[in-house]
Order: sequence, then C-alpha cells, then structure tokens
Amino acid sequence: MSDEPQIPVSPDDETEIPESHPRYESLLTRHRIEHGVDIGITSRQGLIAQGRGEAYDYLLGEQTIESADDAARAAAAHFLLADQPVVSVNGNVAALVPGEVVELADATGADIEVNLFNRTRERMEAIADHLREHGAEDVKGLAADGEIPGLDHARAKVDADGIGSADVVLVPLEDGDRAQALSAMGKTEVVIDLNPLSRSAQAASVPIVDNIIRAVPNITRHARELRDADEAELRAVVDSFDAETALEAAERAIRRGE
Amino acid sequence: MSDEPQIPVSPDDETEIPESHPRYESLLTRHRIEHGVDIGITSRQGLIAQGRGEAYDYLLGEQTIESADDAARAAAAHFLLADQPVVSVNGNVAALVPGEVVELADATGADIEVNLFNRTRERMEAIADHLREHGAEDVKGLAADGEIPGLDHARAKVDADGIGSADVVLVPLEDGDRAQALSAMGKTEVVIDLNPLSRSAQAASVPIVDNIIRAVPNITRHARELRDADEAELRAVVDSFDAETALEAAERAIRRGE
Repeated sequence: MSDEPQIPVSPDDETEIPESHPRYESLLTRHRIEHGVDIGITSRQGLIAQGRGEAYDYLLGEQTIESADDAARAAAAHFLLADQPVVSVNGNVAALVPGEVVELADATGADIEVNLFNRTRERMEAIADHLREHGAEDVKGLAADGEIPGLDHARAKVDADGIGSADVVLVPLEDGDRAQALSAMGKTEVVIDLNPLSRSAQAASVPIVDNIIRAVPNITRHARELRDADEAELRAVVDSFDAETALEAAERAIRRGE
Repeated sequence: MSDEPQIPVSPDDETEIPESHPRYESLLTRHRIEHGVDIGITSRQGLIAQGRGEAYDYLLGEQTIESADDAARAAAAHFLLADQPVVSVNGNVAALVPGEVVELADATGADIEVNLFNRTRERMEAIADHLREHGAEDVKGLAADGEIPGLDHARAKVDADGIGSADVVLVPLEDGDRAQALSAMGKTEVVIDLNPLSRSAQAASVPIVDNIIRAVPNITRHARELRDADEAELRAVVDSFDAETALEAAERAIRRGE
C-alpha cells in the first residue's frame, strides 16, 4: 500500500515524457490514467484496479515474459483466423491504450466495442469519443441490443452485431463473471490480466499475463508479422499455445521472480 | 488489473455489512475507501495505492502472518517504552482505520498527527474532522511549524511538538522518501506496508507487513496485553524482533505462498 513504484512528477502532456526516462512506461501510464479521470472515463474502481495491476507488474519485473509473448502471438493468430473478432473496451482500457486499440483493430479487421461493468450513458459516450479522437471510425456498444446469457441484466448488455455475434473476443482487464460468461458462450476469449490467478485469466482461451500498455501493441506487432501467413501456419501458432502452461509460468514469475 | 477480489456490492453503511460475510473485511475496506473519496480525504493516488495493497494482500492470503504479528507486538512495546510516540495519519489511514487509530492512541498515550504527501489545507482539515468524529480529541499536523531535514519544503512539514520531537513514530502506508528521512533523524520508525520490498518497509525499525485494517487493532491488542509489563519485559520484546528476518518471511509468504 506504499507508493512504489516511485513516480516523481505527473506530466501535463505525454509528449513531455522523455522516452529515455528510466520510468517512462510508469509515467506514461500514470499520465493516461489521470487524464482518464479528468475526462470522466476512469472510475474509482478503475483507479483501484490500476493499483492492483501496478503491484503485479512490479512483482513481474515490469517486463513481457516469454509465455506472455507466446500468448500475444497466439492471440494475433486467433484474430487473423476469426470471422468476426471484437476488442472489448472498458474505462481503463480506453484511458490506457486508446490509440493502440485502434491500431490493433486496423491491423486485424476487428471491431471495437465499449463494454462497461458500471454502465452509464455518459461514460459510454465519453469513452466512444475518446476512441474516435484516437482514430476509431466505428465504435460499437451503444446499441446494447444483445445480451450475454447468465449475467444480470445491467451487466449482460452487448451489441448483437458486436460481441453478441463475435467468434473471437479480446477482453482486457475484464471482470471475472463476464469473462466466464463469455467463455461459456463458446467464444474464443483472449484476456489481458496481470494476475494469473484471477477468474478472468483462468477462463480465457488465451490469457496474456502482461501490462496492457505492452500487451496490446505486442499483439499488433505479431499480427503484422503473421499477415501473410496461411491458415495452416496460423492454426499451428494457435495449437502450439497452451493456456495452463502459460498461466503456470506467469505465476512462477510473479511468485518467485523467475 | 482485473477486479478480483470480487466484491459484489458497495454498501451504503458499514453497519449493513454482516460480519459473517465471507468477504467482510474486503467489503468494509471498500466501503471505507469509497466514503473517504466522498468526504474528500482519499485522493486519486490513494485509490491507486489501495489497489496495490489489495494485490499484495491477496498474494499474502489476506491474513496476518506470524512475523507480522511479532512486528505488531514489537511496535506495541516500542510505543509503551516511548517518551513521545506519535501516529502519523494520511488520507488512506484516516479513511480506513479512523476509530482504530484513536483506540491505539488511547491505549498507548500516543499523539495523532495528520501528515499528507499532497498537502492542502482543505484535505488536512477534512481528515482532522473525520478523526474527531471517531473520537480523537487532539489532532496535530495543522501547525506545521517543524521540518524533516532532507525533504523538499512541501513534503517536510510536521508539527514541532508532534512528529518533530517524537522518539517513536508509526507511519502506516508512508511514502519511501519520507520514511527514509524520518529514519535518518534517528527516530524509531514503525511502518505498516504490504510490500516488504518497498523503501518504507526497508527503512523501518519495525516493518509490519500486513493490511492496515488488521495491523492497527493488532498493535492495540498487544499494547493492552503488555500494559502491566515492566521496562525489562518490554525491552525483551523489542530486542527479540529482527526487521530483516521479518521482511524475508513476508517476502517468502507473498512470493511462494508459504
């Protein structure tokens, strides 16, 4: 509960943060999350969740471990194989990686859908606006004409032609109930979560145990590398990934610093 | 960064939370921190810090480990031996354990001093008011006529007749710079921090690696048990505690689940 990682200043503009700064990534993260609060897209729960992520990332050594890179590559292959991939975006995702989500969607032909645990019209629209400012053309989630079975009504809403009919869904920083419900619908679910023991990570077809700031651009990078791969090659990437092994490796890294 | 530990509801009043609830402590914590935001004493940084604490506590098994109980007992002995013990209170401490801090001060004859990393007159007063509502009679920190050497001016302010002249200080959830500066002043410093690797925990004479919600009442309990102990007994309790061994045990518990 102390204040490590130590972050000396809160910059007003992220262009002011020198990439050479030893805590560049932390400064950028903190700047984006603060800005998210200012524009009404990061909630109180989002700030607490951000803190949990900081602690796990600190124990992980603030680096993309090999099993997380394998997971990002498998996620990219799933996206390229999908008929209808969708990236689900909540408040923290929008605050932390708005431009990176748009790039991933562009690189893989995925839709972007805003999906909030604490849904208000105001926050939905603020998030959609923020994504559009970062280049998103079509943002789903406002129709809310579909439903995920097994969740109470307020939590279940999705777009029928978005997450509702998607075959592959990326849900970064997702609530455990919803992650399990999406998985129960038979969708291929890619989760980004720094806690390998969380229900979201455990429910995922592909759990990426990594900081979202590193993970989303990493999926995009793999998707670009795999752009010309044929279906057999993509299937081989998907088949070579084992979720349980990856989660065990991540837990070892966090618990033992390996 | 996901939302575990899962907390189903946010109660309006803490008396509504049944003590038998399997997640009683989490619900109570969440309720108090939310209330802290509502009354202007918990900051954005405080919410993020709360999240970091949740993650470490989760890995620790949400329990007081044996070495943390030993540390709480040593802290109680230090307080009873002190000429002038002071409990330093920041926004999260005031939000999470206002009544518990007052009980500890009463049981040990300690002063209570408000001390904020991001100091504003408004927050100082809101915190002092909150402590008074929980039974505090004298709340220090508003005079700010003393200084901790080695910190920049805004961070250095303390009351001359409070932390300034204290021989034993309890600083729960303290910033690393200030923990080190207080220690450099030769004070006996008791820190409560869930991260055994933090600079605050490392700088402490007595680091208590435990959730503040459990740790503060635990120090009070030990102080009451030790109330009739003579100086030699209290010295024996103090001398039998080794900070380095306790930090190692805590790190093992977090890293390996031991």
